Amino acid sequence: MAQPKQQPATSLTPQMRYERVRRQSEALAATLSDADATAQSMPDASPAKWHLAHTSWFFEEFMLAPVYGEDVRFHKRFSFLFNSYYDAVGDRHARPMRGLLTRPSLSEVLAYRAHVDSHMARLLSERPDACGLLDLGLAHEQQHQELLLTDILHLFAQNPLLPALKPDVNLKTANLEAADLNWIPFQGGRTEIGADGEQFTFDCETPRHEIIVRPFQLASRAVTNREWLEFIQDDGYQTPRHWLSDGFATAQTDGWTAPLYWTQIDEDWHTMTLSGPQRMNLEAPVCHISFYEADAFASWAGARLPTEQEWEVAAQNADEIGTFAGSGYYQPQIQTDPSQAYFFGDVWEWTASPFTPYPGFSVASGAVGEYNGKFMSGQMVLRGGSCVTPDHHIRATYRNFFHPDKRWQFSGLRLAKDA
Amino acid sequence: MAQPKQQPATSLTPQMRYERVRRQSEALAATLSDADATAQSMPDASPAKWHLAHTSWFFEEFMLAPVYGEDVRFHKRFSFLFNSYYDAVGDRHARPMRGLLTRPSLSEVLAYRAHVDSHMARLLSERPDACGLLDLGLAHEQQHQELLLTDILHLFAQNPLLPALKPDVNLKTANLEAADLNWIPFQGGRTEIGADGEQFTFDCETPRHEIIVRPFQLASRAVTNREWLEFIQDDGYQTPRHWLSDGFATAQTDGWTAPLYWTQIDEDWHTMTLSGPQRMNLEAPVCHISFYEADAFASWAGARLPTEQEWEVAAQNADEIGTFAGSGYYQPQIQTDPSQAYFFGDVWEWTASPFTPYPGFSVASGAVGEYNGKFMSGQMVLRGGSCVTPDHHIRATYRNFFHPDKRWQFSGLRLAKDA
Amino acid sequence: MAQPKQQPATSLTPQMRYERVRRQSEALAATLSDADATAQSMPDASPAKWHLAHTSWFFEEFMLAPVYGEDVRFHKRFSFLFNSYYDAVGDRHARPMRGLLTRPSLSEVLAYRAHVDSHMARLLSERPDACGLLDLGLAHEQQHQELLLTDILHLFAQNPLLPALKPDVNLKTANLEAADLNWIPFQGGRTEIGADGEQFTFDCETPRHEIIVRPFQLASRAVTNREWLEFIQDDGYQTPRHWLSDGFATAQTDGWTAPLYWTQIDEDWHTMTLSGPQRMNLEAPVCHISFYEADAFASWAGARLPTEQEWEVAAQNADEIGTFAGSGYYQPQIQTDPSQAYFFGDVWEWTASPFTPYPGFSVASGAVGEYNGKFMSGQMVLRGGSCVTPDHHIRATYRNFFHPDKRWQFSGLRLAKDA
Amino acid sequence: MAQPKQQPATSLTPQMRYERVRRQSEALAATLSDADATAQSMPDASPAKWHLAHTSWFFEEFMLAPVYGEDVRFHKRFSFLFNSYYDAVGDRHARPMRGLLTRPSLSEVLAYRAHVDSHMARLLSERPDACGLLDLGLAHEQQHQELLLTDILHLFAQNPLLPALKPDVNLKTANLEAADLNWIPFQGGRTEIGADGEQFTFDCETPRHEIIVRPFQLASRAVTNREWLEFIQDDGYQTPRHWLSDGFATAQTDGWTAPLYWTQIDEDWHTMTLSGPQRMNLEAPVCHISFYEADAFASWAGARLPTEQEWEVAAQNADEIGTFAGSGYYQPQIQTDPSQAYFFGDVWEWTASPFTPYPGFSVASGAVGEYNGKFMSGQMVLRGGSCVTPDHHIRATYRNFFHPDKRWQFSGLRLAKDA
Repeated sequence: MAQPKQQPATSLTPQMRYERVRRQSEALAATLSDADATAQSMPDASPAKWHLAHTSWFFEEFMLAPVYGEDVRFHKRFSFLFNSYYDAVGDRHARPMRGLLTRPSLSEVLAYRAHVDSHMARLLSERPDACGLLDLGLAHEQQHQELLLTDILHLFAQNPLLPALKPDVNLKTANLEAADLNWIPFQGGRTEIGADGEQFTFDCETPRHEIIVRPFQLASRAVTNREWLEFIQDDGYQTPRHWLSDGFATAQTDGWTAPLYWTQIDEDWHTMTLSGPQRMNLEAPVCHISFYEADAFASWAGARLPTEQEWEVAAQNADEIGTFAGSGYYQPQIQTDPSQAYFFGDVWEWTASPFTPYPGFSVASGAVGEYNGKFMSGQMVLRGGSCVTPDHHIRATYRNFFHPDKRWQFSGLRLAKDA
Repeated sequence: MAQPKQQPATSLTPQMRYERVRRQSEALAATLSDADATAQSMPDASPAKWHLAHTSWFFEEFMLAPVYGEDVRFHKRFSFLFNSYYDAVGDRHARPMRGLLTRPSLSEVLAYRAHVDSHMARLLSERPDACGLLDLGLAHEQQHQELLLTDILHLFAQNPLLPALKPDVNLKTANLEAADLNWIPFQGGRTEIGADGEQFTFDCETPRHEIIVRPFQLASRAVTNREWLEFIQDDGYQTPRHWLSDGFATAQTDGWTAPLYWTQIDEDWHTMTLSGPQRMNLEAPVCHISFYEADAFASWAGARLPTEQEWEVAAQNADEIGTFAGSGYYQPQIQTDPSQAYFFGDVWEWTASPFTPYPGFSVASGAVGEYNGKFMSGQMVLRGGSCVTPDHHIRATYRNFFHPDKRWQFSGLRLAKDA
Repeated sequence: MAQPKQQPATSLTPQMRYERVRRQSEALAATLSDADATAQSMPDASPAKWHLAHTSWFFEEFMLAPVYGEDVRFHKRFSFLFNSYYDAVGDRHARPMRGLLTRPSLSEVLAYRAHVDSHMARLLSERPDACGLLDLGLAHEQQHQELLLTDILHLFAQNPLLPALKPDVNLKTANLEAADLNWIPFQGGRTEIGADGEQFTFDCETPRHEIIVRPFQLASRAVTNREWLEFIQDDGYQTPRHWLSDGFATAQTDGWTAPLYWTQIDEDWHTMTLSGPQRMNLEAPVCHISFYEADAFASWAGARLPTEQEWEVAAQNADEIGTFAGSGYYQPQIQTDPSQAYFFGDVWEWTASPFTPYPGFSVASGAVGEYNGKFMSGQMVLRGGSCVTPDHHIRATYRNFFHPDKRWQFSGLRLAKDA
Repeated sequence: MAQPKQQPATSLTPQMRYERVRRQSEALAATLSDADATAQSMPDASPAKWHLAHTSWFFEEFMLAPVYGEDVRFHKRFSFLFNSYYDAVGDRHARPMRGLLTRPSLSEVLAYRAHVDSHMARLLSERPDACGLLDLGLAHEQQHQELLLTDILHLFAQNPLLPALKPDVNLKTANLEAADLNWIPFQGGRTEIGADGEQFTFDCETPRHEIIVRPFQLASRAVTNREWLEFIQDDGYQTPRHWLSDGFATAQTDGWTAPLYWTQIDEDWHTMTLSGPQRMNLEAPVCHISFYEADAFASWAGARLPTEQEWEVAAQNADEIGTFAGSGYYQPQIQTDPSQAYFFGDVWEWTASPFTPYPGFSVASGAVGEYNGKFMSGQMVLRGGSCVTPDHHIRATYRNFFHPDKRWQFSGLRLAKDA
């Protein structure tokens, strides 16, 4: 590991946990200019400034205002600007227009954060009984930490100067080789997945419930860039029979011929990273692919994607040995150990499962209930976290989800097979 | 019943079964002009002429040409014109341009059908061994019979003259009342769904497999127009908390304020039907709604949509008592009997289930393998058939599927609840 | 000439002139099927059936109804369906939806025409005083005759079967050579253009007014396909410096690399005509180009397009020696005579002039005043008529106009230069 | 006047003139943050940073590099980033992506400007013979000064906080009344317009040429907000007969019901300005209207727009008495003096004339020749300059041009009539 792992958060006081997450957000943005923090490179992405403000608004709206009243708010219009999608809370600024908010400036947003922090310190000490949403607020902010990084990468990749958030960082594992791919067998049968609610999880991870799984096998590591190149060279992007119908149409319309951020210069492939453009390491996991591409690759390879049930069954006793944001590398590392299954970190793994409610799921009442349930349509589940996921944020029951055509997340794949 | 039910097809010879289906297609188109049969009202729809030709091409391509060679073809360019989506078979004409094919004319298409029919008669008698795809071809043609009706309704609804395919047909059950809604309880547990492959089904219905279902309840009938009006009057279309996020955005963008084909004239609601515009019967099942609307209604009603597993568990021993295309009414009938559950006919029922492969599903080899698997993305399962589904076409394991924003099918909903 | 020229219309009675134009419209549509006459290949085009009905509606609306009242109308909804753009007259059917009007059928439209004809016969005999708009109505119908042909060609060109309106018609002048291009000098100075109102013209041709023109030269004939090929081979379509900025952007976005309807098969160029696909005759005038292309060609050739003032000054004493629709060829003929300037017929000639009102122009009062004035924005003037313009319809003062990116008209160009 | 008028530039040395213009650009941007200077609110607009860099690139590309070679360039990629449209000079960055260039920062752009300035000082002293493009470069930069202000206003108007570039500036003439509108008659006849080339003008103003004009009348001042409100209240925006066809379609599609930046709060109208939102002064000239709206208003008022010929004939001896950017007000002032005709400053005046080449116009050779000629399509001429036009930039022959649907410039109108 490049640096000592942070302590798990569980032994810390609420105030310490709050501080740790909040300071981490600011650390991520430390090298951004006011302009970097303001621009929005596409409607799917948000400005860094917006992430910093929106996560503060969450505490203001759902924890401070209910206790201290409207006067606690930093600015009366910020709720309009920094509410993301909570329709129950009122109107909000149009998402694709976020990049036009040159005011408030980055320093005003940091002042907003300080304002919220001081009131949160007071709430945490005075009214611990009113802090039931603290864990949700912190987990929410960690999600936006990851999005801040994915969105800045996308922004910088649009700039012909190809700037870097962290210059001169190379792959930790640059000279190593990926482990051979093993097929790990799993017995099927009747078992359980999902969170039992005893510690904090997002609502969509609950309830824990029985499932039946057929026997299956999972690859021991993620698909590598080298393997992906074979798919490209075998005309994988041009061969409709590997693809879902919507996927092939999207690939044609958007002109996909390689993962996002790949460019070929003469014979060599390069990719854009948060440390600027880098020559591709063929041993590293493939990254920045859509579900459609993942599914087509699996079909081409004579395999399939795992369901999220299979993934969770396999991962629930696995170690968190992969690379997370705390390492500071912000690139998926080569998975070298043939004895490991690398379920966590490096790249999110697309599964074959649409994001739907678990049996018995019900939405929380109030605006916070808009958290996940309303997105349970048209999106696919990803599992395992990535190299830009905050440390200690992920777990075996964690369900991430994106539309099947999205490629700007740190998303890769693991192959599966029937046994 | 308005007319004696047709005999089930199983006791008939292959030639008789072939004839019955083929003649039925032509009967549906009998009152269409050449122009009616040529126009395409939107990219989702196809011209009637195209349905008549494409279903013939299926037999020509997959049954006749493999045995009799290329010379058996009626016209060398028809494969290009009437291939729908089988990429493995070669290029095809752009879908949204189908309405510009004013040639071949309807009578040339009928001549094409006769040509295919005469060669099929020969094949069925000479080479019964080469007829393994007959059932698929006939089921395929029945699917297009239903689409022909849905597409003609959409076309006629765009014409300010509001023409009728079958004038002067009124609701068979016009003066009756819908049964009270009962909640039918179903015990959960370990059970099986899916087709076992002993008789013809589509590939996506297989394999039969074990599932675990929690106890649940289903409404005894479909939601009615009267109930839907309450949703409208309670600002259901304007209240985001009932809706999936994508659904509300679609409803706003497309300006939905009622089901497709509804119009209010003074105080009264009317709807467009295959018998022209009709005053709405409030007791009849609501029809021409999207999945998004169905889901929002269920949420508003304090219920949810059934999963396709729940639906099939409940329906697998139910009688086919509803109204199908053979009745000639082409409108969902009032479900009057409180002792019945009305699983089949009248309106397709949106389920909560995305269309995904069953565990162990594998795609057939060759072009016919493109039948369903490649559409397993972004679509939702509907169950039960409708008033324009051909008689004897439906079954408990049958999985229909459309994108969640589509409204031009005869689609409604049934409510479900946890037990 | 392939056939004797029709008599000029001026010596005929109003009824005879009415009959001649009306029968000509029907003759053009005689080989169209109901479906051919119904389809609309793009929003710019209209169905043949619509042209036939709309021209009849013009007489009904502006001549019959004012005299005989509303009861004279054939069908109360036809005004909504077949009003093109006269906002003052009431609502109208959305233009891009015209192709969905499968009803009324072609034969019903012909019945509508007969109904209008019988009432017009009565009006012309009973009330000659109320026939002031007859000439406008007939000129209007002739314009739609040309559009009917351009729109049918566009429709048939979208059909992979490439059907023909008139099969087996070849270029009359197929074995001839184009005349050498001469530069004809014209003296500048103070002169007049425009119509003096002594005989029927469209409003936009008036008033006659003084202009000052610099000395200029015009090419003696239109640019040929052979000359256009040189432009293509010199990378004309890929070289931005020849092009207007909007033109180059359009050419890139729409992928223009040759005129509309051109296709290259092996080494040979072919073009789609109303007699089906034909091998390109390199000597014939280039046709189906946009203003943007015409302007870029002229720039590439070191010349420019003529202004409409220059064109009219040059053409006002020229003979009508070109090919018109009455010839039945529907293709521009080779301009072989070096002593002629070929101002009329064959291809419309794009000018450098935007379509703007002449000094002192004023719009007629009432709905008929919507005829031309409201289109005086964003369109370019074309002069001279084409091989699908009705005989005797054109004159030196005639101003046609289309948006600069349109290519489906029979449009070509003539070069000009400063003297 | 709020401040003493600057001296005309003509008595100054080239270096002094250069300095004056360059410092003025930076003064305009002095209160902008890095983020303000980076954002792009729509494809038509450019970031302030881009204006500052592009105008510097012009000097670097066309004056410095030809003399001092490629090494003189500040950064090898800046030519790609800050070339606007000169296709002959090479590739350039996609226009709608300009807002994503968060790097280089505003301070790097200012360093770029300083770099260019130091080399320009050297060139101006060492090589006066190589400075033939200086006037063009300065006039070009002044054009971008105006665009910088129009684009910042558009950006700030998108921000719900409605920030101000210059807070607390009110209308200089706030308590005055507009002069009564007089109709000033002009005799027609043979006369000349255009620049004779004896002092610097843009290419499109040349050559001076003879015209014939009919007698006409012009309004003595621009149309006011009060007069525009009457148009609104008379349903002007909803009445198609006042409008050009394309104009009415645009107004409907884009939902126009008032000029850009107008909002009604309770009974009162407000407008967004560079000093933030302000209550509308009804006496001031109407501003931020499209050509389509100007034309519709004129038609509603029983008048018409002047042609650019008429405007220039009338303006060529008029005084420059209006308000320009040097005043610092950035809002059109009330035109109070009935004895004046106010041809210059306050608001650009839409004319009835499409932007076309003058007779005998020819494009300069080389990349600089792309300056105006390639835009001579689809745009309308505006005359007279506005309250954000730099002082001494305008003249009677000056031709500005925008597409007829654009509203974000400081554009208004003056009425005309036939005599």
